[in-house]
Amino acid sequence: MRPPYRLHYAPDNASLVIRLTLEEHGLPYETALVDRATRGHKAPGYLQLNPNGLIPVLETPEGALFETAAILLWLGDRHGHGPAPQDADRGAYLKWLFFASNTLHADMRMTFYPSLYIGEDADAQATLVRHIQTRLATHLGHLDALAAARPRWLDPDAPTGLCWYLACMMRWMAIYPSAHDRSWFRLADTPALAELLAALETRPATCNADIAEGLGPTPFTAPRLATPPEGSAT
Amino acid sequence: MRPPYRLHYAPDNASLVIRLTLEEHGLPYETALVDRATRGHKAPGYLQLNPNGLIPVLETPEGALFETAAILLWLGDRHGHGPAPQDADRGAYLKWLFFASNTLHADMRMTFYPSLYIGEDADAQATLVRHIQTRLATHLGHLDALAAARPRWLDPDAPTGLCWYLACMMRWMAIYPSAHDRSWFRLADTPALAELLAALETRPATCNADIAEGLGPTPFTAPRLATPPEGSAT
Repeated sequence: MRPPYRLHYAPDNASLVIRLTLEEHGLPYETALVDRATRGHKAPGYLQLNPNGLIPVLETPEGALFETAAILLWLGDRHGHGPAPQDADRGAYLKWLFFASNTLHADMRMTFYPSLYIGEDADAQATLVRHIQTRLATHLGHLDALAAARPRWLDPDAPTGLCWYLACMMRWMAIYPSAHDRSWFRLADTPALAELLAALETRPATCNADIAEGLGPTPFTAPRLATPPEGSAT
Repeated sequence: MRPPYRLHYAPDNASLVIRLTLEEHGLPYETALVDRATRGHKAPGYLQLNPNGLIPVLETPEGALFETAAILLWLGDRHGHGPAPQDADRGAYLKWLFFASNTLHADMRMTFYPSLYIGEDADAQATLVRHIQTRLATHLGHLDALAAARPRWLDPDAPTGLCWYLACMMRWMAIYPSAHDRSWFRLADTPALAELLAALETRPATCNADIAEGLGPTPFTAPRLATPPEGSAT
């Protein structure tokens, strides 16, 4: 019998957040490699799953899901992980999950693919990236204050989708964009988040994701570019 | 007795989406005007409610919520509107709600406040706005195809938070940013969304929001700048 979930992934792409969450909760899934080298995420078949042509897609018995945070929330609710809709801390979880998605992730993505937002002029790209990096530092400051307050949904002993989401984004901010200065990012500037990332690094889910995607032994606290057994990150 | 909800709002700001949703479902609430003219959303008291200093905040018996889409989702789940967590179309609703928040709204906001993303250079701002407007047209094309398929959660006879969210964003794209060319936006280019907006305009919630915030008689299909009885939109 086929597993209920099929994750369309590319190594070290946003699909990594979904893989870590599936691994954390022991949910059975299979994977389908999206070949970025041939722009597989823009191929007609993939666009039928996600018209926006972005990775990941999670195929489920109820149809194809996309949007990283939507998948995280859906999986959590379906399988009883993280604050439930009736819980008193549901609203707090939701507001920071949306913030992670529409502010931290949206801004971060602009620094990775500036041409999509401002065209091919290198100076314009550099100006955009520099400004957005200042914004990212502010966002991480707010998230560090949040982590320092230790809400149960940022507990690394029972990690939610948001935990993995933040850990992956901080990994990517440390190693991307390759073409621009990244000295603004220092994990030590956000000590509560650093502690969260270090704890997540010891979990079996992280080890399994490392094996699958070639992340290395310290993918969150001292990341390096992935050396995946198949596919490519960019 | 005070109503359970207190909406911190400025006229024709993102708080409008929450007001429309509260009105649609007849949920009791009071409002607190955020004075943008004196940067009330950056004042210490407001930052205690939302450290990101953005409008809206919805105070609830379970604490202060922020992030427009998080509030929409929370209200829907609490009061039984829109796809429920166990429903088969929950995932579809979530993926498009997150898309609306992290892509359509995030991009739109860049065209309204380009200096926050690329600094004060007018040419750089114009370049950014022009590129983002092209992206917005693509996003609206995807959403129009979605609306044409008529999922029940885009039914204007039982509007969800996402319906109001899309209607307000299209209103704002039509009238903002004042300083830049907006000829890219033509409602007729997205006929299924245009039909949704026209139907939403006939609902009592829209009428009540017009009275409160001075939106005019056709706030979605032929919008003009708000003339609110109190406060200012910018």
